[in-house]
Amino acid sequence: MATYWCEYAWLGGASATADVLIDVDGDRIVGVTAGVACPAGAVRLPGLTLPGLANSHSHAFHRALRGRTQAGTGSFWTWREQMYSVAARLTPDTYFQLARAVYGEMAMAGITCVGEFHYLHHAPGGVAYAEPNAMGAAMMAAAEEAGVRITLLDTCYLHGGIGVAPNEVQTRFSDGSAPAWAERVSALAASPTVRIGAAIHSVRAVDPAAMAEVAEWARRNGAPLHAHVSEQPAENEQCVGAYGRTPTAMLHEAGALDERFSAVHATHLTTDDIALYGDLRCTVCMCPTTERDLADGIGPARRLHDVGAALSLGSDSHAVIDLFEEARAVELDERLNSNVRGNHATSDLLAAATSDGHRSLGWPDAGTLAVGGLADLVSVRLDSVRTAGASATTALETVLYGAGAADVHHVVASGRVVVGDGAHTSLDVAAELSRSIAAVVEPA
Amino acid sequence: MATYWCEYAWLGGASATADVLIDVDGDRIVGVTAGVACPAGAVRLPGLTLPGLANSHSHAFHRALRGRTQAGTGSFWTWREQMYSVAARLTPDTYFQLARAVYGEMAMAGITCVGEFHYLHHAPGGVAYAEPNAMGAAMMAAAEEAGVRITLLDTCYLHGGIGVAPNEVQTRFSDGSAPAWAERVSALAASPTVRIGAAIHSVRAVDPAAMAEVAEWARRNGAPLHAHVSEQPAENEQCVGAYGRTPTAMLHEAGALDERFSAVHATHLTTDDIALYGDLRCTVCMCPTTERDLADGIGPARRLHDVGAALSLGSDSHAVIDLFEEARAVELDERLNSNVRGNHATSDLLAAATSDGHRSLGWPDAGTLAVGGLADLVSVRLDSVRTAGASATTALETVLYGAGAADVHHVVASGRVVVGDGAHTSLDVAAELSRSIAAVVEPA
Repeated sequence: MATYWCEYAWLGGASATADVLIDVDGDRIVGVTAGVACPAGAVRLPGLTLPGLANSHSHAFHRALRGRTQAGTGSFWTWREQMYSVAARLTPDTYFQLARAVYGEMAMAGITCVGEFHYLHHAPGGVAYAEPNAMGAAMMAAAEEAGVRITLLDTCYLHGGIGVAPNEVQTRFSDGSAPAWAERVSALAASPTVRIGAAIHSVRAVDPAAMAEVAEWARRNGAPLHAHVSEQPAENEQCVGAYGRTPTAMLHEAGALDERFSAVHATHLTTDDIALYGDLRCTVCMCPTTERDLADGIGPARRLHDVGAALSLGSDSHAVIDLFEEARAVELDERLNSNVRGNHATSDLLAAATSDGHRSLGWPDAGTLAVGGLADLVSVRLDSVRTAGASATTALETVLYGAGAADVHHVVASGRVVVGDGAHTSLDVAAELSRSIAAVVEPA
Repeated sequence: MATYWCEYAWLGGASATADVLIDVDGDRIVGVTAGVACPAGAVRLPGLTLPGLANSHSHAFHRALRGRTQAGTGSFWTWREQMYSVAARLTPDTYFQLARAVYGEMAMAGITCVGEFHYLHHAPGGVAYAEPNAMGAAMMAAAEEAGVRITLLDTCYLHGGIGVAPNEVQTRFSDGSAPAWAERVSALAASPTVRIGAAIHSVRAVDPAAMAEVAEWARRNGAPLHAHVSEQPAENEQCVGAYGRTPTAMLHEAGALDERFSAVHATHLTTDDIALYGDLRCTVCMCPTTERDLADGIGPARRLHDVGAALSLGSDSHAVIDLFEEARAVELDERLNSNVRGNHATSDLLAAATSDGHRSLGWPDAGTLAVGGLADLVSVRLDSVRTAGASATTALETVLYGAGAADVHHVVASGRVVVGDGAHTSLDVAAELSRSIAAVVEPA
């Protein structure tokens, strides 16, 4: 049993609640009481305490590219070449080291659960490791050591493009066929801090028949199913050219779209695509900092919300790891398109970062400060130079629009204290990032 | 004499230089030597040391609005009502307290010089203070105590709109006439850390004849001249409706446009407007985080650069105070429009944040790490979780695209150590922000 007292806490709704006592037993919240003074023996959490943040779309190794892809000009596609050069170097051991550090950075940003969209399965040349899930196991072990939960979204990736064989790097991604993918994935085991989900890399990398097989596997296992969708106009053009329909329509025909489905990016959608995501109660995972970095464009967040789709958030390429920045960017980028402020309620953006994100990763029991839920508590300073000036009525907006990951000072994930006083409790995250990145990038 | 040794320093160009010794005498740099080991007695500056950052557009009191204008919907114009309610409460004393804290936050973000676009001149009802420049003096004293230089861009503001009298709040802004403005401003005195500049609030607030008088005053005094230009489409429509020409063309006719002129925002320009700024070697001060927050839109930074206009940066409304965020946003927002990466070279964005910004504020001798220049040194950690993984060749991009104001750890401004180990050397900035904001906002 542990007791936490929060100066302010977000219990849902439009504003924060003062003086909230939260009792934790094991990995669960067993009591939430508002309006009480801090009792002796309670851990005092100053500032605003939020539920755990869910990072619903991650490619952990992209963190090694931060600062390395900004010189010169180019596009998503030239960026991808640089990304592949890192992918080509990774081994289960170096990827474990890197992912542990990256998940440590996430923990320090208040992220208690990561959705790892994982497609780097095999050794160079596409040769299976002795343990076929060695790479996935490395991801799960890394999350465990960093103190965050993980949903391993094991990704089917078969082709280098529509009708194109995988190139040398891509052979490491491919299981050769959807049944071989399913056989490998079926050997992965969940735990109290691990869920296994499925992913279709994209319409470029998975043909329609294989798509249907992956969707069927996810349905049979009640597993989350994610897919990259319409991040770039070129993807849509190729898909419509080859199949006469959009990526979203292809996924729908394959039986992928339901409330367990998350469309990642969904930047360039048709009105029919948008309606489908609403009608079928799908989630759209927006990754605004990546979509801005990669010059993808601004997705239709407001229209998706209006038709009933849920929104979640991901830091994806990890150009930055800051879910506050992702959440506010959904609103702020929409302002650039619409010339109107206030497209999204603060509580909706916070739900995307917490409960809706967790649900999309298969954790419906996380992301709210409520009895019975997983005990995630993320405390954000209201006395830093960035957040100073907040009051009870403005604490949520101050954090969502003014705070950075650096303002997260205390993180409890599944009942375990992972960050205290702004420092990770078991890892020297910055040093591990530095070391593990140096091991996988080309020497300068 | 003081000697600083920089692990890496930006001496201009496309990448950082290692092991740089910088000698300082009084407020000037007197020696810069690369490639030497850290001598005994030198102050060791780990990470990347940059020249001082210039925040070329500030309304200090807007900091009180952070987190307070994000609930609900609205536009630039509804936001302005909330801004006016704070303006209405300020006195020379409360504004001094608030501005000192805000400039302290700037110092901690590596800003060594601020351009304060200052138009809150008079007491409620438009009554002059006993000292007519009491408010401007408060700004200058606040900057001095916070340890940053200031260019007081004293702003002429006469009308509530084209042909419209000032409303009650706006009477505090108005001197009644351009000659009265000039008389008051002429009593302001520069110092080694203060420059006096002029500003035309906007085509809404200054009629063409008055514009010409302000421009003439700036020319006579060799002073920087700034103006808000084309931030919102409505401003352009009103201007073209009333005068048959754009705000930029109006300012040109008034004789305002030359190399001392900065157009602030310049979001919605015609091709002719853009050509004028290039031909006349003006500066355009972009405030991307404000322009995104206020749903203004994305300005034509690349096209302005192409025709020869200089770029500078401002945090303006202080929704955030982080010049790295402003600088990268110029590039990243342009990516959202163009779907292309690499629109601006890293060194160009750094120049906007440093030398070009300083020049636009009347400090041509600041913003570079060069002998004879003002001794500003801004050191940024390369070992935080945000910046870890940087190498010699990627340090600039890592800081520009990955760092936050929280990563600034040591700041020297005009030879004076203002920030050490991430803390302001003389102010408890966060506490002062909290106190001074509470004094000027409506009680919650």
